[in-house]
Amino acid sequence: MRHEVHLTAEARAAFRNFSAACVGTGRMGLALQEEYQRQLQEVQKLCGFRFIRGHGLFCDDMGIYQHWTDPQGVEHEGFCFTYLDRVVDAYLRCGIRPYLELGFMPGALAKEPQTLFYYQAHTVPPKDEGAWIRLVQATLRHLKERYGEDEVSGWPCEIWNEPNLAGFWFQADKPGYLRLYEITAKAVKEILPRMQVGGPAVCGGDSTPGWIRDFLAFCEEKELPLDFVSRHAYMAHMPTHTGRFIYHTMCEVDETIAEMRGTREIIDSFPRWKSLPMHVTEFNSSYNPRCPVHDTLYNAALMAHLLSRFGEVAEVYSYWTFGDVFEETGVPCSLFHGGFGMMADGCVPKPTLWAFSFFNNLRGECAHRDDSCLVMRRPDGSWEGIAWNLSDEAMTLDLSFPGQGEYVLQTRTVDEHHANPLRCWLDMGQPANPTEEELAFLRGAAQPLCATRHFDAEDGIAAELSLGRFAVVHFTLRPVRTEPEDGYDPSMYL
Amino acid sequence: MRHEVHLTAEARAAFRNFSAACVGTGRMGLALQEEYQRQLQEVQKLCGFRFIRGHGLFCDDMGIYQHWTDPQGVEHEGFCFTYLDRVVDAYLRCGIRPYLELGFMPGALAKEPQTLFYYQAHTVPPKDEGAWIRLVQATLRHLKERYGEDEVSGWPCEIWNEPNLAGFWFQADKPGYLRLYEITAKAVKEILPRMQVGGPAVCGGDSTPGWIRDFLAFCEEKELPLDFVSRHAYMAHMPTHTGRFIYHTMCEVDETIAEMRGTREIIDSFPRWKSLPMHVTEFNSSYNPRCPVHDTLYNAALMAHLLSRFGEVAEVYSYWTFGDVFEETGVPCSLFHGGFGMMADGCVPKPTLWAFSFFNNLRGECAHRDDSCLVMRRPDGSWEGIAWNLSDEAMTLDLSFPGQGEYVLQTRTVDEHHANPLRCWLDMGQPANPTEEELAFLRGAAQPLCATRHFDAEDGIAAELSLGRFAVVHFTLRPVRTEPEDGYDPSMYL
Amino acid sequence: MRHEVHLTAEARAAFRNFSAACVGTGRMGLALQEEYQRQLQEVQKLCGFRFIRGHGLFCDDMGIYQHWTDPQGVEHEGFCFTYLDRVVDAYLRCGIRPYLELGFMPGALAKEPQTLFYYQAHTVPPKDEGAWIRLVQATLRHLKERYGEDEVSGWPCEIWNEPNLAGFWFQADKPGYLRLYEITAKAVKEILPRMQVGGPAVCGGDSTPGWIRDFLAFCEEKELPLDFVSRHAYMAHMPTHTGRFIYHTMCEVDETIAEMRGTREIIDSFPRWKSLPMHVTEFNSSYNPRCPVHDTLYNAALMAHLLSRFGEVAEVYSYWTFGDVFEETGVPCSLFHGGFGMMADGCVPKPTLWAFSFFNNLRGECAHRDDSCLVMRRPDGSWEGIAWNLSDEAMTLDLSFPGQGEYVLQTRTVDEHHANPLRCWLDMGQPANPTEEELAFLRGAAQPLCATRHFDAEDGIAAELSLGRFAVVHFTLRPVRTEPEDGYDPSMYL
Amino acid sequence: MRHEVHLTAEARAAFRNFSAACVGTGRMGLALQEEYQRQLQEVQKLCGFRFIRGHGLFCDDMGIYQHWTDPQGVEHEGFCFTYLDRVVDAYLRCGIRPYLELGFMPGALAKEPQTLFYYQAHTVPPKDEGAWIRLVQATLRHLKERYGEDEVSGWPCEIWNEPNLAGFWFQADKPGYLRLYEITAKAVKEILPRMQVGGPAVCGGDSTPGWIRDFLAFCEEKELPLDFVSRHAYMAHMPTHTGRFIYHTMCEVDETIAEMRGTREIIDSFPRWKSLPMHVTEFNSSYNPRCPVHDTLYNAALMAHLLSRFGEVAEVYSYWTFGDVFEETGVPCSLFHGGFGMMADGCVPKPTLWAFSFFNNLRGECAHRDDSCLVMRRPDGSWEGIAWNLSDEAMTLDLSFPGQGEYVLQTRTVDEHHANPLRCWLDMGQPANPTEEELAFLRGAAQPLCATRHFDAEDGIAAELSLGRFAVVHFTLRPVRTEPEDGYDPSMYL
Repeated sequence: MRHEVHLTAEARAAFRNFSAACVGTGRMGLALQEEYQRQLQEVQKLCGFRFIRGHGLFCDDMGIYQHWTDPQGVEHEGFCFTYLDRVVDAYLRCGIRPYLELGFMPGALAKEPQTLFYYQAHTVPPKDEGAWIRLVQATLRHLKERYGEDEVSGWPCEIWNEPNLAGFWFQADKPGYLRLYEITAKAVKEILPRMQVGGPAVCGGDSTPGWIRDFLAFCEEKELPLDFVSRHAYMAHMPTHTGRFIYHTMCEVDETIAEMRGTREIIDSFPRWKSLPMHVTEFNSSYNPRCPVHDTLYNAALMAHLLSRFGEVAEVYSYWTFGDVFEETGVPCSLFHGGFGMMADGCVPKPTLWAFSFFNNLRGECAHRDDSCLVMRRPDGSWEGIAWNLSDEAMTLDLSFPGQGEYVLQTRTVDEHHANPLRCWLDMGQPANPTEEELAFLRGAAQPLCATRHFDAEDGIAAELSLGRFAVVHFTLRPVRTEPEDGYDPSMYL
Repeated sequence: MRHEVHLTAEARAAFRNFSAACVGTGRMGLALQEEYQRQLQEVQKLCGFRFIRGHGLFCDDMGIYQHWTDPQGVEHEGFCFTYLDRVVDAYLRCGIRPYLELGFMPGALAKEPQTLFYYQAHTVPPKDEGAWIRLVQATLRHLKERYGEDEVSGWPCEIWNEPNLAGFWFQADKPGYLRLYEITAKAVKEILPRMQVGGPAVCGGDSTPGWIRDFLAFCEEKELPLDFVSRHAYMAHMPTHTGRFIYHTMCEVDETIAEMRGTREIIDSFPRWKSLPMHVTEFNSSYNPRCPVHDTLYNAALMAHLLSRFGEVAEVYSYWTFGDVFEETGVPCSLFHGGFGMMADGCVPKPTLWAFSFFNNLRGECAHRDDSCLVMRRPDGSWEGIAWNLSDEAMTLDLSFPGQGEYVLQTRTVDEHHANPLRCWLDMGQPANPTEEELAFLRGAAQPLCATRHFDAEDGIAAELSLGRFAVVHFTLRPVRTEPEDGYDPSMYL
Repeated sequence: MRHEVHLTAEARAAFRNFSAACVGTGRMGLALQEEYQRQLQEVQKLCGFRFIRGHGLFCDDMGIYQHWTDPQGVEHEGFCFTYLDRVVDAYLRCGIRPYLELGFMPGALAKEPQTLFYYQAHTVPPKDEGAWIRLVQATLRHLKERYGEDEVSGWPCEIWNEPNLAGFWFQADKPGYLRLYEITAKAVKEILPRMQVGGPAVCGGDSTPGWIRDFLAFCEEKELPLDFVSRHAYMAHMPTHTGRFIYHTMCEVDETIAEMRGTREIIDSFPRWKSLPMHVTEFNSSYNPRCPVHDTLYNAALMAHLLSRFGEVAEVYSYWTFGDVFEETGVPCSLFHGGFGMMADGCVPKPTLWAFSFFNNLRGECAHRDDSCLVMRRPDGSWEGIAWNLSDEAMTLDLSFPGQGEYVLQTRTVDEHHANPLRCWLDMGQPANPTEEELAFLRGAAQPLCATRHFDAEDGIAAELSLGRFAVVHFTLRPVRTEPEDGYDPSMYL
Repeated sequence: MRHEVHLTAEARAAFRNFSAACVGTGRMGLALQEEYQRQLQEVQKLCGFRFIRGHGLFCDDMGIYQHWTDPQGVEHEGFCFTYLDRVVDAYLRCGIRPYLELGFMPGALAKEPQTLFYYQAHTVPPKDEGAWIRLVQATLRHLKERYGEDEVSGWPCEIWNEPNLAGFWFQADKPGYLRLYEITAKAVKEILPRMQVGGPAVCGGDSTPGWIRDFLAFCEEKELPLDFVSRHAYMAHMPTHTGRFIYHTMCEVDETIAEMRGTREIIDSFPRWKSLPMHVTEFNSSYNPRCPVHDTLYNAALMAHLLSRFGEVAEVYSYWTFGDVFEETGVPCSLFHGGFGMMADGCVPKPTLWAFSFFNNLRGECAHRDDSCLVMRRPDGSWEGIAWNLSDEAMTLDLSFPGQGEYVLQTRTVDEHHANPLRCWLDMGQPANPTEEELAFLRGAAQPLCATRHFDAEDGIAAELSLGRFAVVHFTLRPVRTEPEDGYDPSMYL
């Protein structure tokens, strides 16, 4: 399959790139872990995300809500920010800021006994709304005092997670969620009037349009603060199971974009909410942390395509999740296990990490965009682009650029044989707990192939890129700053 | 070209491996530099050399010998170990120990005005033998006190460098050198009786056999301490010049080994010195730090072959040098400039680094050795080997091993397109001072290709390795520790 | 109060020092935390403990025991070592090795619903002994494979914790514990015959002698493996409560030593067990992690005294705990909160840390030991010692040493005004979550006063040390290596 | 001696603080050293200087100017930025920027054979003005390309150093310097029009007023670019010598300020140059790097006083030098040796470092300033100040502040017994090359005493500070954020 892209000096294409806006993480308490922080630092070096969003701010392992009875039988309430500060300090050290998600419920405030996940999140309303508001406000007041009002006001704040699922919100009770939103959004704005608040953080699926509509109508009617609308986007269809693993087929990127556009249109149908920012606070291929797709090259190509389009419909989209320190279904038992992470434990990059790294570092303005290629023009006369191959066969990309003189094409290739550590790990017999020596080899196998080509152009540069199935390639084409030292010519040894 | 290697359970081959014994460095004063220490740390992670040998212990930039006249006109002598301690501390932090080379002459003690190199080494005898001995003994006494007698006694000690060259020793005066050896070797043993001393550190060339013979005879006659004989080995022939660069052709490895064997035979011809260890305290392809060969893949293949053979003739052989922080002919003006280093500035590995890394980390006993391949057997039933291709055409290596069941072959390939940053840098137009972004790309291009193959063997494993021109490949073949989790099978996404 | 100590060239005193043998930690899962690892690294730099012992190896947060039902309704058992490896790798990076404590029970194996602590340890027997043995053996087999049999065989292995308390072992059922010991000790030795196993890890108190006696008789009768006897030692009496805090008075060190000697005598009363090593696998002043004594100077002086004596009765004694990352009673809400740690969060050393640092680094042989002072003689003619003042008034210690010529006395003082960050923190109004600036100040306030005195002795050195209430002082007295540069004399500016 | 300072809510005092503007360093080539970079990092953590100025940009050890003859006898000129980039990269990593000093002369361009210092700076005019201009412009062009025009335009640029001394400029030839300034300043502006250029960098002394006047008149007459006037300020009088050391008495701070004001008045006497910024590009007590005063507490108190006044007369003042890696008179032979540095080798802070750290971090507006005390008011209601005692006797400072409620006074004291490692080192017998253990002790002895006092004020806070001879104290007085946990009260153990 050949694909031709012809760039001219005047070429322009629409492209909004918010790929670096936010990234997901399991739950806040995991951010205390050393492995978590190490992975986040590595991811940040390559990707530079601005915000990080995860569950569990108010889960018991964070220890924020304190309730005890003294020897005299008197009950006491208190707030403990030891771990919250430690997590936020770690985030800031990694050059990332929290995107707050207010939830779940502290055990002591839970109205019902329902819990979710290995880590036993209480996914129910508060038994005492006043206590919930005190908890929210004490937390925000503390953050404001410690990190400064200007800083904290810039952190987005979402209320709860996926209330349209009964597992995440008792009986998926819509009026209950709207009530929670009402009291919480107001509570937030009392402490931090400039903080951006939003919801309803629904997961997608059939109930989503109704939830979005009712949520917007409710906010309009009650004149509630609302700075963005949030929802999730997963591409998974038709699960099959083997052992403890699940296998989904994935929908087309077009479908996902169409689904998002549907939500966008609902928002815009409310005159009051027209053009309100839309945040996709979670997205991925499969929504299951034991689906092997996340470890694959295919996932990287799929995400590359999605990232080339997501800006058409949303202002924030947050890949769920940056790393494999994650415990919803228990402690991962094996290096590769279908976890959401862009990076496997032991700091082994998965192919998807490179897709984000390539998109997050794009500079310049868009000159061309199609379903397998994106090209940017930089002010200094150089070009930069990303290509991906989601088709079933190998693809040859014929790129032509204007220009004359010496140019260098630098490519970084992620394909079956490069930056694909899963393949090596399968060959190695799937060692659950690799030794440091094995990990070093896998990290070596997880690097893109860096290659160059030199052009001495009379009139235009014609560069051919070969992309194997599911490959993702980053390239730059730069005029050569020629400064060779007189006489250096190793060609007799080459 | 095909090359077959058939391994059996009983296969054995002779192979002495001292590749990690020692490595060279320009001059001690350079070890104060941060870039030098960073490169050394990186090299040590990959190579783990035991000793490091360089010139210039007593050069003025180390500041050890102090001589001044006070306001009353009285002359004073002193010794200053500020920089020496700083260098040795840095070496020990890098997990490497100094191989002492006693020289050159402090300016204040130089008998003649002759200097060598950009850094103006005084390459002449002392004008006052007593002062020289005080200098040597004060230095050793200080080292003994600071690092402990046991530790320092284990550091080899060589007297001067290449005295058979007039540039390194005034008029290449042989009796003068013998005298220097006599007084210095005795001075060393007075302070540290167990320290191993040796010479004459000659450079090779026609005068070498005579120097070795006369040196041994002199030591025998005078009954001097002598624990090893040292010389150098360079493979360079027929220089041509372009600009400030020099281009040598290289001799065959056989020739170099034969030349070394010649020296070995001279030593053994003295009953008193028979079997005395021989230290090749410098070796490389070209002896010139502006010869582009050092930056090339060819150099790596050549060194691989040499390392497979060097143990036949010597107990120490020290590649000159580990890194490109080097100033003999001035400050390097460009990233690649033909410097001796295994690593270019900015911590970019050259292909040769991998040859050493592969040899230095070999474990087990040798099962097979020929002119393009070496295979080791490890106690746990796995195999490890190195292959190189010094021929003009591509080579296919057919390896067969005994065994049954599941095996994984892991390969790390250094060839034209992998771990060959010079090629990319040439394409980039030879940027003299790459930006951090360009360096990051070059470091990416300087990694071997890590790949795997899985075998399910009924009776023996037949593995085919393809080696392009000048490629060097490291491989391991290990039985698979099969521990896949039930149900993990991402093949539907591959 | 004056106290005189007269050292002679011949002075000798008995002193066994195992202060560096082991240190305690809350539970293994906490070792995943970054703050925990950072504290451990700092503690190790100062103290260099050899082993670390904590609870919770088999608690659910470590995720080792896996039990699940597949979609077909079939039950599965598995073992997951992801977190165990991560913890042990971190320990080894910190230069410390695990002292294994086999417990508590995975939830899926718990025979009773009883749990203990905020972290919900299942403190009950297994409902299936076979599964328990499989768990123990799979874990040891995995450790053996990953870290090597020689390495792992050197880690001591204790069976359960404080079974004589009903909270830690259902109904404090003694026969049940003996049964557990029997099957577990045998299981251990099957996998690692050289591993040292022991118990019964009792907590102290009235039931202890009976437990020890019955345990030894049982092991004798059943001919069980037993390599050491273990128990705990806490000095707390008479609790009073205020808010969520508890205040104990402490017993005398003599009492604690006598109590330990009692256990020692029971052991020696069994001919078979005579001289068997005794491990005090936990000790501290108070046994409560909300007792403010742990933060105080008094605790340091008390521990100094205890460390000077503990070697009389035991071969291992392990302070409970090295740091304040600890969750038995919940997440700590404030910087100082009476936690067990030698180091507060944010890496602020408490006074007790210095007592251990001083003892752990002692070298030489003991020349003098009394109730407030310990002096060691080093081979090089220098002296080193520790003094402490547990009395109610200031103490002057008059030390006299033999010797002549120049000497320097170096002291490091921990007292009310030095290395006592609690005092500053109280003045600062007890900030629960100090800012980084406040922490930096507190770390500054947590350093001992380093001071020197110079002696030019004609016949003996008389050094006077002043110790305020509860002070702990480390001192060295060394002959001066006189090497002043001629003419350096800044006295005109002093 | 008592000194009273009464602060009111309205108190204001004039104070311009540029103490963090710039700091000095020996010569640029030393910045390649690892010890240098380590010291700079530590100094920057405590002091956060914005610029760093040193000699030797064009000295041969930097290797910028290249001149060679090829085998055909043709001469070549080139420019090599390998080391310059390495130095500037290191500076930027340390959070500091270069303050360029254009000098000295490459050996190949030197008109006369005169050299200065152990490092043999060529302190003479160019033999070829065109080559000098090419050198300057190639260097600036390279910096502009590598670091960006906006960045580099912000670096000040001074032409040469102390041309009014014959050692620094051949025969102190004034017309020759003016000519150099003319061609160089123009050359700079051609490449970087916004870069600030200045001179004449004179050293002080009798010739200074004449030089300044003639320089300004020359620039006016020739209409040369001139953005600042630079000179130096040393306080040293009456040298005496002992061994290789020199001892100066110091003038009063008033004298130094008056001398600077004299220069200021000359500048302002030119209508064209009125209010032109004045840069004191070097200052210190003694101008000799073997004057022990630099190691003392007295120097810290003297500098504190000077820093409290320097803003009256200059916009930049740069302490000569930040660290003791310095080679003008040779390699330092001993830890303390009277070197200029704020920090001794091995990263041992000298007292002077704390004076700078205290001044550089001052925040708020000045409420009070006198000859021994400075107090700032911060927006949040807290106070911060520095006190110093340059008198011959102990001083008691009575500070009174308005306010009520709980306050905490935090003090950091540098005095004879705290942050005064010289004193300990003298007691230790002046070890020239301390062991790592000795260095650790000295670093411990080099920390200020951190102490606190708590006030519960009804009407105003009266705080008494005691300052021993030459002490420097930093203090803050802050309202207490009272957040004690209910019931935490360790007083029973204190």
